[in-house]
Amino acid sequence: MNHRAVVTLEGHIIDSLQLPRVWDLIMDMGGSFDVEEFRVGKKKNEKSFARMSVSARSEERLREILESIQPLGATPIDQVDARLEKVRQEGVFPIDFYSTSNQPTWVRHDSQWLEVAHIEMDCGIVVEGGKARVIPVDEAVVGDQVVCGYGGVRVQPLERTRERELFGFMQSQVSAEKPKKLIIKDIAVSMKAVRKEGGAIIFVGGPAIIHTGAGKHLSWLIRHGYVQVLFAGNALAAHDIESAMYGTSLGISLESGMGMEHGHEHHIRAINRVRAAGSIANAVKQGILKEGVMYEAVKAGVWTVLAGSIRDDGPLPDVITDVVVAQKEMRRAIHESNVSMALMVSTMLHSIATGNLLPASVRAVCVDIEPSVVTKLADRGSFQTIGMVTDVESFLRELVGDLGGK
Amino acid sequence: MNHRAVVTLEGHIIDSLQLPRVWDLIMDMGGSFDVEEFRVGKKKNEKSFARMSVSARSEERLREILESIQPLGATPIDQVDARLEKVRQEGVFPIDFYSTSNQPTWVRHDSQWLEVAHIEMDCGIVVEGGKARVIPVDEAVVGDQVVCGYGGVRVQPLERTRERELFGFMQSQVSAEKPKKLIIKDIAVSMKAVRKEGGAIIFVGGPAIIHTGAGKHLSWLIRHGYVQVLFAGNALAAHDIESAMYGTSLGISLESGMGMEHGHEHHIRAINRVRAAGSIANAVKQGILKEGVMYEAVKAGVWTVLAGSIRDDGPLPDVITDVVVAQKEMRRAIHESNVSMALMVSTMLHSIATGNLLPASVRAVCVDIEPSVVTKLADRGSFQTIGMVTDVESFLRELVGDLGGK
Amino acid sequence: MNHRAVVTLEGHIIDSLQLPRVWDLIMDMGGSFDVEEFRVGKKKNEKSFARMSVSARSEERLREILESIQPLGATPIDQVDARLEKVRQEGVFPIDFYSTSNQPTWVRHDSQWLEVAHIEMDCGIVVEGGKARVIPVDEAVVGDQVVCGYGGVRVQPLERTRERELFGFMQSQVSAEKPKKLIIKDIAVSMKAVRKEGGAIIFVGGPAIIHTGAGKHLSWLIRHGYVQVLFAGNALAAHDIESAMYGTSLGISLESGMGMEHGHEHHIRAINRVRAAGSIANAVKQGILKEGVMYEAVKAGVWTVLAGSIRDDGPLPDVITDVVVAQKEMRRAIHESNVSMALMVSTMLHSIATGNLLPASVRAVCVDIEPSVVTKLADRGSFQTIGMVTDVESFLRELVGDLGGK
Amino acid sequence: MNHRAVVTLEGHIIDSLQLPRVWDLIMDMGGSFDVEEFRVGKKKNEKSFARMSVSARSEERLREILESIQPLGATPIDQVDARLEKVRQEGVFPIDFYSTSNQPTWVRHDSQWLEVAHIEMDCGIVVEGGKARVIPVDEAVVGDQVVCGYGGVRVQPLERTRERELFGFMQSQVSAEKPKKLIIKDIAVSMKAVRKEGGAIIFVGGPAIIHTGAGKHLSWLIRHGYVQVLFAGNALAAHDIESAMYGTSLGISLESGMGMEHGHEHHIRAINRVRAAGSIANAVKQGILKEGVMYEAVKAGVWTVLAGSIRDDGPLPDVITDVVVAQKEMRRAIHESNVSMALMVSTMLHSIATGNLLPASVRAVCVDIEPSVVTKLADRGSFQTIGMVTDVESFLRELVGDLGGK
Repeated sequence: MNHRAVVTLEGHIIDSLQLPRVWDLIMDMGGSFDVEEFRVGKKKNEKSFARMSVSARSEERLREILESIQPLGATPIDQVDARLEKVRQEGVFPIDFYSTSNQPTWVRHDSQWLEVAHIEMDCGIVVEGGKARVIPVDEAVVGDQVVCGYGGVRVQPLERTRERELFGFMQSQVSAEKPKKLIIKDIAVSMKAVRKEGGAIIFVGGPAIIHTGAGKHLSWLIRHGYVQVLFAGNALAAHDIESAMYGTSLGISLESGMGMEHGHEHHIRAINRVRAAGSIANAVKQGILKEGVMYEAVKAGVWTVLAGSIRDDGPLPDVITDVVVAQKEMRRAIHESNVSMALMVSTMLHSIATGNLLPASVRAVCVDIEPSVVTKLADRGSFQTIGMVTDVESFLRELVGDLGGK
Repeated sequence: MNHRAVVTLEGHIIDSLQLPRVWDLIMDMGGSFDVEEFRVGKKKNEKSFARMSVSARSEERLREILESIQPLGATPIDQVDARLEKVRQEGVFPIDFYSTSNQPTWVRHDSQWLEVAHIEMDCGIVVEGGKARVIPVDEAVVGDQVVCGYGGVRVQPLERTRERELFGFMQSQVSAEKPKKLIIKDIAVSMKAVRKEGGAIIFVGGPAIIHTGAGKHLSWLIRHGYVQVLFAGNALAAHDIESAMYGTSLGISLESGMGMEHGHEHHIRAINRVRAAGSIANAVKQGILKEGVMYEAVKAGVWTVLAGSIRDDGPLPDVITDVVVAQKEMRRAIHESNVSMALMVSTMLHSIATGNLLPASVRAVCVDIEPSVVTKLADRGSFQTIGMVTDVESFLRELVGDLGGK
Repeated sequence: MNHRAVVTLEGHIIDSLQLPRVWDLIMDMGGSFDVEEFRVGKKKNEKSFARMSVSARSEERLREILESIQPLGATPIDQVDARLEKVRQEGVFPIDFYSTSNQPTWVRHDSQWLEVAHIEMDCGIVVEGGKARVIPVDEAVVGDQVVCGYGGVRVQPLERTRERELFGFMQSQVSAEKPKKLIIKDIAVSMKAVRKEGGAIIFVGGPAIIHTGAGKHLSWLIRHGYVQVLFAGNALAAHDIESAMYGTSLGISLESGMGMEHGHEHHIRAINRVRAAGSIANAVKQGILKEGVMYEAVKAGVWTVLAGSIRDDGPLPDVITDVVVAQKEMRRAIHESNVSMALMVSTMLHSIATGNLLPASVRAVCVDIEPSVVTKLADRGSFQTIGMVTDVESFLRELVGDLGGK
Repeated sequence: MNHRAVVTLEGHIIDSLQLPRVWDLIMDMGGSFDVEEFRVGKKKNEKSFARMSVSARSEERLREILESIQPLGATPIDQVDARLEKVRQEGVFPIDFYSTSNQPTWVRHDSQWLEVAHIEMDCGIVVEGGKARVIPVDEAVVGDQVVCGYGGVRVQPLERTRERELFGFMQSQVSAEKPKKLIIKDIAVSMKAVRKEGGAIIFVGGPAIIHTGAGKHLSWLIRHGYVQVLFAGNALAAHDIESAMYGTSLGISLESGMGMEHGHEHHIRAINRVRAAGSIANAVKQGILKEGVMYEAVKAGVWTVLAGSIRDDGPLPDVITDVVVAQKEMRRAIHESNVSMALMVSTMLHSIATGNLLPASVRAVCVDIEPSVVTKLADRGSFQTIGMVTDVESFLRELVGDLGGK
């Protein structure tokens, strides 16, 4: 255990659980630690500080431990500049590139700490012209200077606030067995605050919104300015348009809830009609599409990205069938819209896709009737995420009510 | 295959699926059949009729097949009286007693067909004084004349009505992804009709009703005469009383949805206070309990059976801790209250217990947020059961709304 | 009700449930029927025949009913040629195109019944040079002759066999609570039979196969010739390659099951290395990738289609990022490989995508630990699908054992 | 905020999360704290110590906070004797009785700290003859001296060990998507160690063990001395005996996995036969019952408690139908058998019942295929519980293999 390094942590490191997690990781990875200095915040708004010596049985293991505890805020004390290496092959990072987390990050360059822009996990950091920004691997261009190793990188995880607050629970998941009224009310309050401050709200939605008859609530949210960006797939749009054109969703009448065994050909007919029009916006212009979620999104100028999936029928002409192109467009919408809140409702695929792209600082609400989906989505290592297991239709209805809808 | 018997089926045997199921069973059990006569109902209200010869490789196998297809309405053509054997040991049926289904059943005695009373599955039939009735095995008394074998017993399964109707779908389960508005409206209509005709409604409920803040909706149903019989366990009552006394359920504040880690000792304190009072009714009388589900049930004179379970804390003094005694009391409530509808909400244990006791003719609605629970409950081999996967609080809120509540 | 048409059904229409379903549909849609002729199969191998007059309140409604019952085999008696209309816009079908089911279908053309090739649901039928084939809407080319309306189209649904057989149960889903040993044994027997007859087996898999440590079983299946076609996404391949390179899956050690909090950067490093090599096959050639599912697939020449999804990291260079292109490649693999069996394991997305493309005649086995996924997948309106709720690792281990693996 | 008290915590209070949880609770309940002294364990085996002043807006609130943080080990510094009050009514505790947690607890009496015996949550503490022990409310006898208030009670929560160990993870639940091989191996190692040290293992099981064909694995565990105590209900025993007598479980053949629609009357026939014999042991003696779980339990002299439930058919004569009596018998088995490990498999009802009775120091393994069940069971506020989402049959098969079975 004679390979050692000294790291520091600062902030609400006990109640935001950073310190216990750092200790866990060190021990799980076979390392050891000595606390050299420890100052605890005496009152609830004072920060704590810890300086620790970390040791491991080999230099290699020590490096792995330091890499693993860094996203929790443990910063090596010896301050060096980040090492930069050039990209030598299109779309390929240098072998030991620094792989990002979704937490606020700084890079030391020319003895200066640069804040990293476009935070996103599992990507690389490019330094160029005195600025640092995150890029995904497929955007690496020959010549890009990419941060390698873990030296000269500092991460400051978001902390739990000391005030009791909606987005700040240690245990973020709200089970099916708990009362949700007040939480939905708090979400409504947060949405109003975000809009007042000029922030944008992303809505990520799946087709169950339409199947359950909740499309009208989402339409209300759009019409009243609570959705600036809409991420979805072919299914949400197709079933919404089917419902506007035929009154059914997957062949199920939204009025009666009863299905016609092969009424589900309606959705392919709806898609065919929009294909004939050329686009959803054209279908609105031509008067073919007169109501529903997509109609409202067109009318309100919502920045909509419909991403293709391998199970798509048709698809609608607006769907971006290349998923890498769709991701680029989603990133663009996130970066250019000042997104500060995300509602992710009834779609595991698109919610995980969006979650991958968002920085930890965006408050996220995940709603699904399947507990396993909520568990996966709510687990972003962030105090900014709330998961709710509930019926989608009642969640949206209640939310609309709390925002002043009928 | 030279062991044979002739059976007949009559009714809407094709669209109520009796005929295909009988054929399935015969083939699954290695038997064979010849259709000797078949008359199909030409119009939608005409009944069909089938006479078939069933054959098997042994007399034993033939008997098993005939026993298995009988609950589907396949009646042996040779009409004999049911064979009766005497109970010789307290609480034990004769070895080859006829084990009942939950479908309408007749027994042939002295060349007369007697309709069997108190229909319940997995029990025996006692014939006494020209009357036939179902009894569970633990009520068998030495000397009881119990029907044995399958001869002389006729079952007439409930049929799907030819009119489109709420309780009449081939596929009775309503998934989480379907619109439920109209179905809940139809349930409300059925409840009103049942009450108008003087029928009783059983409500079977679990503690999630209280945890989710839906207790006030159940209270409304009781106050407005939509619950005549209430089956539950210690948990529903204890958490309801905890909520009335402390404003929490399992230590979770029903106002805020936020929990105090050890606030859940409230429920044992609530139980202790009712134990001190002697009974829930006494607690109401003494002014200790002033609101909530149990309060309303006492006030409205609802026939309440609280059945004990091995996980009970306390329990409350009203809980019948012996489950066999509790079952007897539940049977008594069912038989003496003219029950014709059952709402089973958020409790697998008590819902299955109740389902076991109810005849197939009682219309049942099963609601839970877990699809696996709904699947188990809705599968009673009856067209009279509807299962809904949804949030309990929104189900009850919507139901109350449809019945005229605020 | 004076709008009428006469239809016939033939086959095992009672026990394959076609007749009851046809009657259900007619009644659910507000129509009526008279049975004009009915001949029941007297013995278990004789077919039944029904001729019925269907009536509805309007010509429009009658047309809808006839369209809906046709996929169940109800064929209008008046035999006309199918009506053909020309495609006038790239990628758009004529307005009333015939939307296909996944059942065997014939089209009447020049008074001849042509069997339709490339059966797939929710598509159109093109007739050209005396041949009929299915095409998806995005492949419609100006000038294609597409079948419109429902006249001149005959569907013959697959029937339940009268012999007891694995792929032939009315209730196709095997719940978590049932013994699965014999069913897995039967699946193994079916796989051997398929291979003996020269049929191909598709394996559709998700990353949980790797996470649960079942990759080695899938590798065995590939190595021993039980997989001819592999459909998956970036995740399965990336985690498999991560596991081959680092011994982890999503940062979880496959040996110990314990995770390193940020060990999940391994998967993006693995992807980066394969991107540097140019392709998975190159990585194998260069000796970077030496074991695992993708290694075996390369070695065995399995026809592999990796379809992109919006949640992909990287992705691997082999992933087809355009989903429409990926679908075309999947169709090509299905049509050119003589696929007659499909194993769909732990991936809702890719399994539904594959299920959409397969004709009902391909026997399908769907395995997942989530009952809701199995329910969605197993519901293809076919007697050829088995759904199993079970642990993926134990399913594959047992299957390998039954096929003669250790 | 001028109502204050001083508390201390000692141990691995940071990495066992006691300190952050205490801070959370104080803040969630509207209180405040000042850290007066803090000594951090410098090395991984050194304990930490904290002295804090807690303040609240009222004396009442302060008391609630102190009560809530006490089960986490926060002990008021002013050491007084516990206040004792006499029970004045049979089965009723004094109004402000101390409600127990499942953690190790001491009571100060005559200036001495007495360790409390028979630790169990949601009960009271009786002090008698210089000894303290837990009793449930229904056992309170007039004259018992019961601890009231929170003064003079000290709780020392179990700590996470600093060594990496099976039963010691912060996140105790093993999801369906993780490899389970090594964890099951570790469970086997723990079981061997428990037996070597003379500890007893409780097995708590539900009927799915029989339905899935896993009965033979449980039989093996019993035969080889890995089960000293068996807690179950009527269903496990009845389906096991059905399976021994008829080869079916719920009418499903365990050989073929295929069901006979009304074969499930087998279970009531099996129950009837055991009722005729008088008991399961008699049925074994008379040669009626020759194999299976209950047979092995009788042969091996396993301390078996079959607790009744409201959904029971029959029930078997061995079932204790009064649940309060059954709980007493379960407590007796736990206290007199030196139980130090519990396997809880496929039964939410009996597992929660057992979990309620066990001290936190008993290591518990919960296995179910439903994630929601595992979540409920694994959440005992203890580092000694592992939850696994997996197929029951494969879990038991693998466990038997790791213990040396075939």
